[in-house]
Amino acid sequence: MGTTIAHTVATRNRPCALWCSDDGTVREIRERRRHPRHFPNSELPRELTATTALEEVIRGASVVIVTVPSPRFRGTASSLRSLLSADQVVLSATKGIELPTLKPMSVVLAEELGTDAVGAISGPNSTPDIMDGRLTAVVVAARDFRVTKACAQALQAPHLDVYANDDLVGVEAAGILKNTIAIALGIASGLGWAPNTRAFLFTRGLAEIQHLAVTLGARPSTFLGLAGVGDLLLTSSTPDSLNTRIGVELAGGRSLAEIVAALPEVPEGINSTRGSHELAKRAGVNMPIARRTLEIMEGVMSPDTLEDALHHHHCGMETDALC
Amino acid sequence: MGTTIAHTVATRNRPCALWCSDDGTVREIRERRRHPRHFPNSELPRELTATTALEEVIRGASVVIVTVPSPRFRGTASSLRSLLSADQVVLSATKGIELPTLKPMSVVLAEELGTDAVGAISGPNSTPDIMDGRLTAVVVAARDFRVTKACAQALQAPHLDVYANDDLVGVEAAGILKNTIAIALGIASGLGWAPNTRAFLFTRGLAEIQHLAVTLGARPSTFLGLAGVGDLLLTSSTPDSLNTRIGVELAGGRSLAEIVAALPEVPEGINSTRGSHELAKRAGVNMPIARRTLEIMEGVMSPDTLEDALHHHHCGMETDALC
Repeated sequence: MGTTIAHTVATRNRPCALWCSDDGTVREIRERRRHPRHFPNSELPRELTATTALEEVIRGASVVIVTVPSPRFRGTASSLRSLLSADQVVLSATKGIELPTLKPMSVVLAEELGTDAVGAISGPNSTPDIMDGRLTAVVVAARDFRVTKACAQALQAPHLDVYANDDLVGVEAAGILKNTIAIALGIASGLGWAPNTRAFLFTRGLAEIQHLAVTLGARPSTFLGLAGVGDLLLTSSTPDSLNTRIGVELAGGRSLAEIVAALPEVPEGINSTRGSHELAKRAGVNMPIARRTLEIMEGVMSPDTLEDALHHHHCGMETDALC
Repeated sequence: MGTTIAHTVATRNRPCALWCSDDGTVREIRERRRHPRHFPNSELPRELTATTALEEVIRGASVVIVTVPSPRFRGTASSLRSLLSADQVVLSATKGIELPTLKPMSVVLAEELGTDAVGAISGPNSTPDIMDGRLTAVVVAARDFRVTKACAQALQAPHLDVYANDDLVGVEAAGILKNTIAIALGIASGLGWAPNTRAFLFTRGLAEIQHLAVTLGARPSTFLGLAGVGDLLLTSSTPDSLNTRIGVELAGGRSLAEIVAALPEVPEGINSTRGSHELAKRAGVNMPIARRTLEIMEGVMSPDTLEDALHHHHCGMETDALC
């Protein structure tokens, strides 16, 4: 996502600096205008510079976007503090949860930077489509409209429509919690569920995560928006999304350890599922679909018990909409 | 849908009578236990009786469900009036709008029957999946809980989970308005849109129809439920749904007249799209996606202008969630 955002900004002749922890990647980008791992076939524009020196990235930037995975997020945020000036805004593009603190990335940013001028980028935006210049919606979420506006101005491009949402809690909760439902939908695909049952799972899964998020302070309507239903739809409808792949392979009988071993890095969806389970327990929210998905991931229950969790939702006669 | 509901009820050893206007169909069902047109390969249970005599269907029934297409709905409802007793409840399973009155079917029922003990059946439930016994969610909507309860009791089956919603306006509006967005998504499929752009269209389309429905008195949360996002997801994700087929063929350059000529009957989605356009005009609600979809259906605009309508949504910076 970092490379994609930098590419989008730099393509419009605005300078953008990309931080990479790895020397080799920086050299490849500088010398061959290619990101060797993520986008070996896309030429990166001249305005995109790459460096391993954090201070070079921060210097002169109006907007700083952090995209490192959740386990390394706090460390990176912490090393930003001394480099930032008061007029710079910082946003997370990582849809993940910190374990064991159960905090979303913007809270980690606020804590490490000692400011509330933070935000998050979310929505249904897979990176290959953005790199291909396909029309894409991006949600910029922040409580402070100054943050939203600065980020929107930096990101805007002919193929990117920026939407604003001041419900930062809801946007980040949606980005975290949707992973579990997308894994469940991947299991359903792997098991060959009928379209009716899949739509049933999608909707009740969405209701479940909305319920938890509202308990945490989110606005219900955020779940009807791009960062909610839009992102869940995208991640569950593309067969090559990590969440779908995890679900399909679980349904095929592989263990989570085997599945993760074959992936380049541990997907956020796994930590997110564990984290949301803890959040639900603390908040006293019943999430039968998410709980069963975690049990299937942990090998405690078999994939074909997922339907019982959905069915179980209906004790007597439930109401269609939660709020 | 009529045959499917009757089949579901009768399979559980509860008598159910199916009304058909056509003598030949009634004879086939009686003699060969098959519905010749809709389900030639499913054996219909003995408890399912078929008749062309409306009074035989109504006599002794606790719940009456009307499933005739919207253009013939009022006529059928009207002929029910003298046959009904005060303890019988009547629901519509037709997700359509009456033209030119712009009324949903439950309003037609209430007017023709002179009672408010009416309701609607909706949700993500395609008939082949129900006939195959696949787990399916059904929404029963009525203002009067007596209606909901009677219908839920009649419908409940091991593979049907019944959900209740007292927002009758919202449930019927969702069933009508979702057709247009599903046709738009069919056009997008036909044009080979990227997953990001498809998810963008799905979400903004949902926001648009929710906006109109709320103006008509619906509860926003209904659109996050089974009759809202659930039904839109189902009808837009199955390639053989009528709405998807209409959209795909429009994208392929065929005219609406050609497309409809090849179908067994005029799909509700076409009247629904025309009707919702009128509703939006009267309510003063801006629906760029629905309007452009109608223009494409009418041959006034070419299918590849659909993306402009989506893009146009973004004037300056829009908010992610509408309410």
